[in-house]
Amino acid sequence: MTSGQETSATGEYGTTAPAVPPEQSEREDELVRRVLSSFDGCTDRRLRQLMQALVRHLHAFLREVRLTEDEWGKAIEFLTAVGDITDARRQEFVLLSDTLGASMQTITMNNEAHGDATEATVFGPFFVNGSPEIDRGGDISFGASGEPCWVEGTVTDTAGRPLAGALIEVWEADADGLYDVQYGDGRTAGRAHLYTDREGGYRFWGITPTPYPIPHDGPVGSMLNAVGRSPMRASHLHFMVTHGGHRTLVTHIFVRGDHYLDSDSVFGVKQSLVKDFKQQNAGTPTPDGRDLGQQSWSKVRFDIVLAPEGR
Amino acid sequence: MTSGQETSATGEYGTTAPAVPPEQSEREDELVRRVLSSFDGCTDRRLRQLMQALVRHLHAFLREVRLTEDEWGKAIEFLTAVGDITDARRQEFVLLSDTLGASMQTITMNNEAHGDATEATVFGPFFVNGSPEIDRGGDISFGASGEPCWVEGTVTDTAGRPLAGALIEVWEADADGLYDVQYGDGRTAGRAHLYTDREGGYRFWGITPTPYPIPHDGPVGSMLNAVGRSPMRASHLHFMVTHGGHRTLVTHIFVRGDHYLDSDSVFGVKQSLVKDFKQQNAGTPTPDGRDLGQQSWSKVRFDIVLAPEGR
Repeated sequence: MTSGQETSATGEYGTTAPAVPPEQSEREDELVRRVLSSFDGCTDRRLRQLMQALVRHLHAFLREVRLTEDEWGKAIEFLTAVGDITDARRQEFVLLSDTLGASMQTITMNNEAHGDATEATVFGPFFVNGSPEIDRGGDISFGASGEPCWVEGTVTDTAGRPLAGALIEVWEADADGLYDVQYGDGRTAGRAHLYTDREGGYRFWGITPTPYPIPHDGPVGSMLNAVGRSPMRASHLHFMVTHGGHRTLVTHIFVRGDHYLDSDSVFGVKQSLVKDFKQQNAGTPTPDGRDLGQQSWSKVRFDIVLAPEGR
Repeated sequence: MTSGQETSATGEYGTTAPAVPPEQSEREDELVRRVLSSFDGCTDRRLRQLMQALVRHLHAFLREVRLTEDEWGKAIEFLTAVGDITDARRQEFVLLSDTLGASMQTITMNNEAHGDATEATVFGPFFVNGSPEIDRGGDISFGASGEPCWVEGTVTDTAGRPLAGALIEVWEADADGLYDVQYGDGRTAGRAHLYTDREGGYRFWGITPTPYPIPHDGPVGSMLNAVGRSPMRASHLHFMVTHGGHRTLVTHIFVRGDHYLDSDSVFGVKQSLVKDFKQQNAGTPTPDGRDLGQQSWSKVRFDIVLAPEGR
């Protein structure tokens, strides 16, 4: 009936549970066939493909684990709680997708490595349209707490040609692990946009990234706790880079040596995106002559390569 | 790493998509491995099994269909809408599980056929604890509209021995397809409980079941509409039968000849539960001498066999 990807000896639609008698297995197969065929009349071919594949994998999961009725009830309760806490400011379904790696898998599939183009990672829930514009060398923090961090690099195409006028949007959490949208007072801080110069160069002052937990006071947090996982994200700085004729890049850079690189709660870390944030003692001269007084600072270089559009 | 149920030539965790280059497939595999191992520290073995199986099947689904980022966004929107409409009176996640056959598969797995025991089917969202008790031969309708239906039968064990004092809870929709809990005025109608007599016998007046749609003004209704499926349930009458020492049975009986037997929106129909509801013209004497005036009526027999407990 289908490609038989999940076929096993005990049933057409697959279960690895060993102790299912053949009549029972056939009863379960028959149900899967009925559910699959209920979508046969769907005229949208892609939707039909999606729904039938969903049904096959969903039933294969249920049958492999032999889900109990009690566990089914708990799953319904869990999803209901995810729905309850979700509102315009809190997207628990995205958190659920993130913590199961589904978001990152979708990103990974839709951003196949292209030559030497910079890799993408998860978008996250904290981007805001219409951030303030800064000049190159300006400061995105707007009062957000944290150690100053000088960020510089270039934007080029995969042939190494500089891309002038590329739009760079950046956003990050403050030293307390909060984005401005979490302050609750409408302030804009820790986000801005700027453009590359004629040589594709860019530079700005941000904040040295620090680790922070994803919101974990809801059902996804309870799930992470129950399975012994940390809600912490590896320290990172968000980028979205846009240039006509090139694929828009949504990515982060991560801090080499960060404690959470191997246990990022949303699986966003890629080795190519881990960068050296070089610590500078207080008093070390800054690249643009800015006087930071008794404040230590850091610097990092991130050279960005955009893939051609339409791949 | 796992049993390889979904292994394919193009990747350890399976995709039937043909055009994935090996480096890309390995990148996707590697992500699945990272997500799976994030659950390795879970000390609750069953929970670990459930979560790791969920991750394997979820990622296999995403990779098989090569979900786009736009489709991922629509899935998040859909789940958010399911959460939005769900409240104490409306359980859209259960409807979603029902319409994907997941509820019925769970029932099917947890109620393996046992000798000649009566088969189970979906519980549905309309059961209410503490229904009124009626005497044998009483009427469960309490004013719910519909054609009277005489229901009788016995409750026995799998050896055919009568089970005296078995609790029979019954509930059904009225002629407009509504359960009492959908009236919104707190009335109780179309539900009651009674007990079997010394010979295991029971009998009551109900309403001849008629087809009705599951609630379809929400996202699940939109999904059914988009794929060309009907929201109609085959006509049925709910039973829950409880007797000490025996497995509690949750089931329905269906009406032979009903238009929706082959397209029940929640996949609840089992052939063994389809019964002859014999139509009786107005004036045909009733089993208990009740005078129904110019009203036609029907009668049905349902002999119930309970499986022993603990299977």
